[in-house]
Amino acid sequence: MITDGTAVTREDVAAAARRIAGLVLRTPVLEVSPGLFMKLELLQHSGSFKVRGAFNRILSAGTLPDSGVIAASGGNHGLAVAYAARTLGVRAEIFVPEVTSPVKVAGLAALGAHVTQTGAIYAEAAEAAAKRAAETGALSVHAYDQPEVIAGQGTTGLEIMEQTGGVDTVLVAVGGGGFAAGITLATGDAGGGGPRIVAVEPELIPTLNAALRAGEPVQVGVSGVGADALGASRIGGLAFGVLSAPRVRSVLVPDEAIVAARRVLWERHRLVAEHAGAAAYAALLSGAYRPEDGERVAVVVCGSNTDPAGL
Amino acid sequence: MITDGTAVTREDVAAAARRIAGLVLRTPVLEVSPGLFMKLELLQHSGSFKVRGAFNRILSAGTLPDSGVIAASGGNHGLAVAYAARTLGVRAEIFVPEVTSPVKVAGLAALGAHVTQTGAIYAEAAEAAAKRAAETGALSVHAYDQPEVIAGQGTTGLEIMEQTGGVDTVLVAVGGGGFAAGITLATGDAGGGGPRIVAVEPELIPTLNAALRAGEPVQVGVSGVGADALGASRIGGLAFGVLSAPRVRSVLVPDEAIVAARRVLWERHRLVAEHAGAAAYAALLSGAYRPEDGERVAVVVCGSNTDPAGL
Ligand SMILES: Cc1ncc(COP(=O)(O)O)c(C=O)c1O
Ligand SMILES: Cc1ncc(COP(=O)(O)O)c(C=O)c1O
Repeated sequence: MITDGTAVTREDVAAAARRIAGLVLRTPVLEVSPGLFMKLELLQHSGSFKVRGAFNRILSAGTLPDSGVIAASGGNHGLAVAYAARTLGVRAEIFVPEVTSPVKVAGLAALGAHVTQTGAIYAEAAEAAAKRAAETGALSVHAYDQPEVIAGQGTTGLEIMEQTGGVDTVLVAVGGGGFAAGITLATGDAGGGGPRIVAVEPELIPTLNAALRAGEPVQVGVSGVGADALGASRIGGLAFGVLSAPRVRSVLVPDEAIVAARRVLWERHRLVAEHAGAAAYAALLSGAYRPEDGERVAVVVCGSNTDPAGL
Repeated sequence: MITDGTAVTREDVAAAARRIAGLVLRTPVLEVSPGLFMKLELLQHSGSFKVRGAFNRILSAGTLPDSGVIAASGGNHGLAVAYAARTLGVRAEIFVPEVTSPVKVAGLAALGAHVTQTGAIYAEAAEAAAKRAAETGALSVHAYDQPEVIAGQGTTGLEIMEQTGGVDTVLVAVGGGGFAAGITLATGDAGGGGPRIVAVEPELIPTLNAALRAGEPVQVGVSGVGADALGASRIGGLAFGVLSAPRVRSVLVPDEAIVAARRVLWERHRLVAEHAGAAAYAALLSGAYRPEDGERVAVVVCGSNTDPAGL
């Protein structure tokens, strides 16, 4: 189902910012060279921006059932929902596929979540979560395709504009597209203008790129170093509506460029990012996106759930 | 020789800030909870604040001899001088003791420095560097006990006050004391007022603490996890003058607290700090310094030259 992206507005993002203020970090911006800004969203609670959407979705729901909230994800979304639920004193159930590593399951459990490991692949765990939600009435928090989630992620974009004093371009990684869609909405003006949004995906998981070519969300293969966090196999319907705007440019990067960017983030900038968190920077470093002279650019470094020993 | 600390002033720090602007990063400040700020100086070029003093010392010298600059240090100071010299296109000679690890020597060489490994201990390398400087006329850059170095490090303090809108207390690690002295000068007002400066040292290297007890700089033992960066065996004379002010409080932390703080910095805040870089935060986490309700506190997280695999 493709829902019109106009279902979420800039005002929804502004309302989300008020709702989640004090619960999420206003992550800092680092100007690494004149006009080049990094939004350090990898320092966010739970290690990624995903808490923004999780808090906004949960707090928008009004009274919650005793069954609390439910989500399917062995990755950053699961951690974020578990973190938000613990902070708010709400029960959280997280469904993860059987392949999920014991370390990740332990991480979720440490946040107090009730973890159910089921299904060979993610889609089966998601199906089980949906069934369970229908039984218990728990509030389901989607990883990207819900208006409140997109509005929450978009608060990152508001901060970027405030903290940099404005940029011409924002580079952001795309999985299911909720993050990039939220930032696009947050940074847009009433007339359809706003900074260029460079939506970066691994060549091996081109959900947005393939959808833009096809004119609608399509299924793509999922593999490579970004798969654990950018592994949606189809762009979200809401996100697709937003990301079809003319000021959004879809850019693909090879896995080698992501690996190299992750290394540079540590060696030169002392930031430990996971691969997905380094994808946007990879577009810049590899030349997949080349800013013009004097162009003011913000790169979102968005996730740190990784083992630093690998660096 | 104890030189009067008033040899360096707040105006010197302000002049240093103008001199080194654009060469060092204005590192970001993260408000981790209401009124608790972290100054992320570990993201600085070369991995520590030491480039501030190095740039200010070199740029204050006017025309440099062809022999360039010289320093003795196998640690952050050596890296900083090498980095600053490379940026300014100046020759750098760095003397390190024979115990210095091949990795550190390679790091200095990668920055283009001419490395001389000599002497069993640091003091012997320093002596050799001094002799060499006398021969070549190279500008020697001290790790902490030069007015321009102290003024340069102090620019961190100016930024803290601007970026936080003002704090009641700054926690900062002390080795030779140049960093803490610079921050004390930077944050002070004409009447001797200013935020409290909590000068944090490992119990195993109490250079300032012992000096304050003795009424003058004295030799102390050097061991423990902070030794590679906080390993000055005597507080600098200039720093001692400044750090004898009533608003400076000396606090000691055990190595276990430093190790624990370093771990929390990664696990909770996604920052990879070296032990010295975590010492100030250790004072807070361990309760060695307890802020009052509503006290606005800045913690300087000041170094990241460490192997993240250890986390
Ligand atoms: C670190 C990181 N970056 C980017 C994304 C992509 O976000 P979205 O699925 O909203 O496009 C994710 C999704 O989990 C992520 O964890
Ligand atoms: C990371 C770090 N913190 C703190 C210090 C202490 O600085 P100072 O010697 O100026 O007291 C040093 C000194 O090398 C350092 O490298």
